[in-house]
Amino acid sequence: VEAIVADLQALLAAAVGAGHVLAASGIPADYGHDEALDVAPVQPAFLVRPGSTAEVAAVLRVASEQRVGVTARGSGTGLAGAARPGPGGVLVSFERMNRVLEIDDANNVAVVQPGVTLAELDRAAAGQGLVYPVFPGEMTASLGGTIATNAGGMRAVKYGVTRNHVLGLEAVLASGEVLRSGGKHVKVSSGYDLTQLLIGSEGTLALVTEAVVRLYPRLSFQATVLAPFASLEQVTAAVPRIIATGIGPLICEYVDVLTMAAITADGDIDLGIPAGVRESAIAYLVVMLEERTQDRLDDGVAELADQLTRLGAADVYVPAAPAARRLVEAREKAFWSAKGAGAHDILDAVVPRAAMAAFFDDVTRATAGSGGALVAGCGHAGDGNVHLAVFQPDAAARDRLLREIFAAAAARGGAVSGEHGIGVAKKQYFLELADPVAVALMRRVKQAFDPRGILGPGVLFDSPVAAGGTE
Amino acid sequence: VEAIVADLQALLAAAVGAGHVLAASGIPADYGHDEALDVAPVQPAFLVRPGSTAEVAAVLRVASEQRVGVTARGSGTGLAGAARPGPGGVLVSFERMNRVLEIDDANNVAVVQPGVTLAELDRAAAGQGLVYPVFPGEMTASLGGTIATNAGGMRAVKYGVTRNHVLGLEAVLASGEVLRSGGKHVKVSSGYDLTQLLIGSEGTLALVTEAVVRLYPRLSFQATVLAPFASLEQVTAAVPRIIATGIGPLICEYVDVLTMAAITADGDIDLGIPAGVRESAIAYLVVMLEERTQDRLDDGVAELADQLTRLGAADVYVPAAPAARRLVEAREKAFWSAKGAGAHDILDAVVPRAAMAAFFDDVTRATAGSGGALVAGCGHAGDGNVHLAVFQPDAAARDRLLREIFAAAAARGGAVSGEHGIGVAKKQYFLELADPVAVALMRRVKQAFDPRGILGPGVLFDSPVAAGGTE
Repeated sequence: VEAIVADLQALLAAAVGAGHVLAASGIPADYGHDEALDVAPVQPAFLVRPGSTAEVAAVLRVASEQRVGVTARGSGTGLAGAARPGPGGVLVSFERMNRVLEIDDANNVAVVQPGVTLAELDRAAAGQGLVYPVFPGEMTASLGGTIATNAGGMRAVKYGVTRNHVLGLEAVLASGEVLRSGGKHVKVSSGYDLTQLLIGSEGTLALVTEAVVRLYPRLSFQATVLAPFASLEQVTAAVPRIIATGIGPLICEYVDVLTMAAITADGDIDLGIPAGVRESAIAYLVVMLEERTQDRLDDGVAELADQLTRLGAADVYVPAAPAARRLVEAREKAFWSAKGAGAHDILDAVVPRAAMAAFFDDVTRATAGSGGALVAGCGHAGDGNVHLAVFQPDAAARDRLLREIFAAAAARGGAVSGEHGIGVAKKQYFLELADPVAVALMRRVKQAFDPRGILGPGVLFDSPVAAGGTE
Repeated sequence: VEAIVADLQALLAAAVGAGHVLAASGIPADYGHDEALDVAPVQPAFLVRPGSTAEVAAVLRVASEQRVGVTARGSGTGLAGAARPGPGGVLVSFERMNRVLEIDDANNVAVVQPGVTLAELDRAAAGQGLVYPVFPGEMTASLGGTIATNAGGMRAVKYGVTRNHVLGLEAVLASGEVLRSGGKHVKVSSGYDLTQLLIGSEGTLALVTEAVVRLYPRLSFQATVLAPFASLEQVTAAVPRIIATGIGPLICEYVDVLTMAAITADGDIDLGIPAGVRESAIAYLVVMLEERTQDRLDDGVAELADQLTRLGAADVYVPAAPAARRLVEAREKAFWSAKGAGAHDILDAVVPRAAMAAFFDDVTRATAGSGGALVAGCGHAGDGNVHLAVFQPDAAARDRLLREIFAAAAARGGAVSGEHGIGVAKKQYFLELADPVAVALMRRVKQAFDPRGILGPGVLFDSPVAAGGTE
């Protein structure tokens, strides 16, 4: 066994250079996990840091020949454990492939390497008056990681999710072959859309080495409107009406009172809401508008405020820009608030928008039946994507509660994850609840891409390779 | 052989009812082709008209057992021959599965059967103040057909293509198994996105039997702005600048003078452009804006007119609503104008938006080298999707010209088809020009879905089944 390991190390060193291969004991602990709360770290056999597509291909040829599991890692900010290495496997970190190769303002696209962070791309795009509209709440996330999970975030209600913005990919297959799909053109009907198939595949089909993503005009004028409601039903009923006006909110977020208290306390934010209103509120709707002129923005805010009042808001607040910005930032960091408060897991089930209120009832019932559990929530109301922080220290009880919550989401016509992905953390629920015909097809697609099953061991499916650890 | 055919007829009759099975000589000639100009009709062995998903599944079980090719047909308005049956095969027409099952205005979605036409869905959605924004220029197209080709159309520059609007599918696999993918939820990261994989697969992976599609607020205020330019470079340079303002055009079309003359003559449209301006114009940009209030529309038109002037337009016209509507309708019917004028083929290559001018130069050069050929064009300038009507009666010369044009599109970073699809008509060019690693993967994906190769014989790939006719 030691000889095989030494041999593998030599082969990987030949692929990426000895200085970019770390063996087990020398690998910093951080590489053993991502931000999933309920996934145990695993130390990989090797960490490699390729610097080019050719080096990624060389690594995969070695892994394929040796039948060793390979896990891709961007910034490690995922919430489903998809970047958690398999035991005995190779972890490929894209930290060196971190260049914004081009901001093309004639085509409104950027060409990026997978290790570029959202913050870095945002800075580069801003310089040209453009924006990449994926803001999943963690700007240190890598482009590769956000493509792997089909990241969404608050602005998805206006712009859509990652899937809507990726035009082309270069990716390396398990065999080491380099695939090129799509490009700078914004539409295409020329064969199966492999770009779309790779997006959201969580590192199980191929390793993305370059991406062409759309950029959009960076609009200058933004305002945030905050509306407390006396019932959750009013909030969820208001959302489709707001969308139906065509006002096109940039964000449309639901925040429950527990979460609002936590994020305003953490952020020390004074939103100017009188105590009496705060006490009678059950839930808040946070709507942000974005326009290209102040006049259009003012019009929109007046129209929205009027509508929210008619839809039953206790009052409507337009916090000053600094407080509004901090509220939205705090909302983006709700995961960290929940983690800081000791949450045991984070879910992001998705349901049809109009089913949100009924789904919350399901969650309340399930929680009440799970002795001592507490579930706090906020979510992308405009998208029906419900983020729940689950506090239930008992693992078996938590598992039963999650199973019940996800089954409710599926019964309402939804799915296990709206944007975090399945990874290793939610695999069992996904495999139980998804259409069995669909799951069987996904396995055959996986087989078509990765016949030896070396990519993303344990992610989405139990892994066929020895090196692939499963739950 | 006759016994086998009789046997097949009996099996199909058991699947859909004898009254919904037509045998060869009884099948109307229209079912032998779609609107592709350069694809010879083929009479199928049988035409079947299933009335339900269960009947589609029964047909596919029969076909799979008998290893007979199956071609799906919606309204037959496709432009690439994907609905052209294979010789000896079964043509499945969805004309009886033509119901709008639901307009859900709380979730802003419609649930439709594949035989519903765009016109029918538009009427149903309009009743709720909503719109399905795919307008590919042919409102008799079926939803199933537009999903199969990932149809685009003029409004794609604002709303995106079919792919961006389909949230869920029910589809029957070659085996007869029923697949359910997605649903009414607007985002999802739960396994591979099979919905996206089926969109644009031209009937080669599964037969869609039901779709959930997004609807959008139907905005009431529209205006059309028409700008003649003295050079094509000015037109194509103007487009990214217009997009960059954030003005969000509903349509952004390029029309060359030949095409403009043809469509205004056909439509007898007076746009009020003085003869002097008309004579110096080389190309026109047609930009349509859409807003939810008249004030916002007026603002937008003024801003756009001002910008077009700065970008070098000879003048800017805002035709009265009836003339504008007829211009846009005539542009939508450019295919029929070209067909009426005797065009021998229609192409819809796509390139990065900023590469359009260079691509037109390529086309001009290629055409000049193709003795006597004439190529007239218009296209979705905002999308880089160039529609060319090719007049070249000599088949071999036409083939050389097409090969050169498509090779130029690929060299500019584009692809063979932006929205019409590959079908049987453009297969050879697609297979020659696409990334070979991508094509090999597509074949493996096809194999994963349809191991006997019975679906869409001859479409995208040469067919492995005997019944599948190829070019």
